[in-house]
Amino acid sequence: MKFCSECAHPVELTIPAGDNRPRYVCTQCTAIHYQNPKMVLGSIPVWERDGQLQVLLCRRAIEPRYGYWTLPAGFMENNETTSEAAMRETVEEAGAHIELGPLFTLMNVARVHQVHMFYLATLRDLDFAPGEESLDVQMFTEEQIPWNDLAFPTIRTTLELFFADRARMRASGGGYGFHTQDITKPMRSDV
Amino acid sequence: MKFCSECAHPVELTIPAGDNRPRYVCTQCTAIHYQNPKMVLGSIPVWERDGQLQVLLCRRAIEPRYGYWTLPAGFMENNETTSEAAMRETVEEAGAHIELGPLFTLMNVARVHQVHMFYLATLRDLDFAPGEESLDVQMFTEEQIPWNDLAFPTIRTTLELFFADRARMRASGGGYGFHTQDITKPMRSDV
Repeated sequence: MKFCSECAHPVELTIPAGDNRPRYVCTQCTAIHYQNPKMVLGSIPVWERDGQLQVLLCRRAIEPRYGYWTLPAGFMENNETTSEAAMRETVEEAGAHIELGPLFTLMNVARVHQVHMFYLATLRDLDFAPGEESLDVQMFTEEQIPWNDLAFPTIRTTLELFFADRARMRASGGGYGFHTQDITKPMRSDV
Repeated sequence: MKFCSECAHPVELTIPAGDNRPRYVCTQCTAIHYQNPKMVLGSIPVWERDGQLQVLLCRRAIEPRYGYWTLPAGFMENNETTSEAAMRETVEEAGAHIELGPLFTLMNVARVHQVHMFYLATLRDLDFAPGEESLDVQMFTEEQIPWNDLAFPTIRTTLELFFADRARMRASGGGYGFHTQDITKPMRSDV
């Protein structure tokens, strides 16, 4: 940020009176321009038949991580709720028709100023198609998940927690949990 | 937003190619200035002795809702996690020393482009004091909560869910839940 979005004069990075961190402050109109973390919302769309579960993944057609696999997800917009954002991104990226379940993961990625959240979701049918931001959309069983070609650590974490919950549910019943986690390592050092 | 924060030329509200909603786009350098919802993080600091539970509330020294009661909460900053933000706001507004528990509520307030989240918290001691943004900090039993003088609907909702969970726990055991909710009514029509 170089200029004030209200009066076009230069901004400077300074700690305003009564504050304790540097902000972009206009040198002319004194407007303070705060910068805050963004939310990324997505879903874990699953299809289960005859005891066989498959998860829908999208192959990214955009940077960052072009060509890598992701759960459908994207930045939450103004005037929508977290569940509406998760639903919208699933339609936009995978053309998928889902029924949204409860929130499953909330993960802090503080180094990039983001909070990622994923909702459980059930596919209504297998009639899906890649949107503009996807090269491909495919269904994967747990064994088929491309663990080394996932786009982001929050995708890996969400899928790991999802299959761990299912293993626990098979062994001792109960339902899916809600999981919060802080992600500190970038993807490439994970794989 | 009237001017580009990168080059100071005027922006116009238009739908960029490949997008489907209006954005502020620079008429000169074509930078797109996205606007996204913000997160408000806070805690529910409690003190429990001899079966008597009290909750810490702050009386607001700032607008909006000057003079009304709130749980300690505020905007999440870049470079921090949701739990760090909840902890920081509790220190800043109430000078309180807490041990943070799990996330308790996540509430969408889409009409003001905000998501509010509150963590369970236990006070380490009763050594607290109002910060710059608080007129007063006090402990309240459930019967003493100033329901008609609460600052925001998300405060009311979080406190209602908290005491409902405690009533359920007294009756049939178990622990606190995690609750998501969409808040559509402003505070004044609630009371």
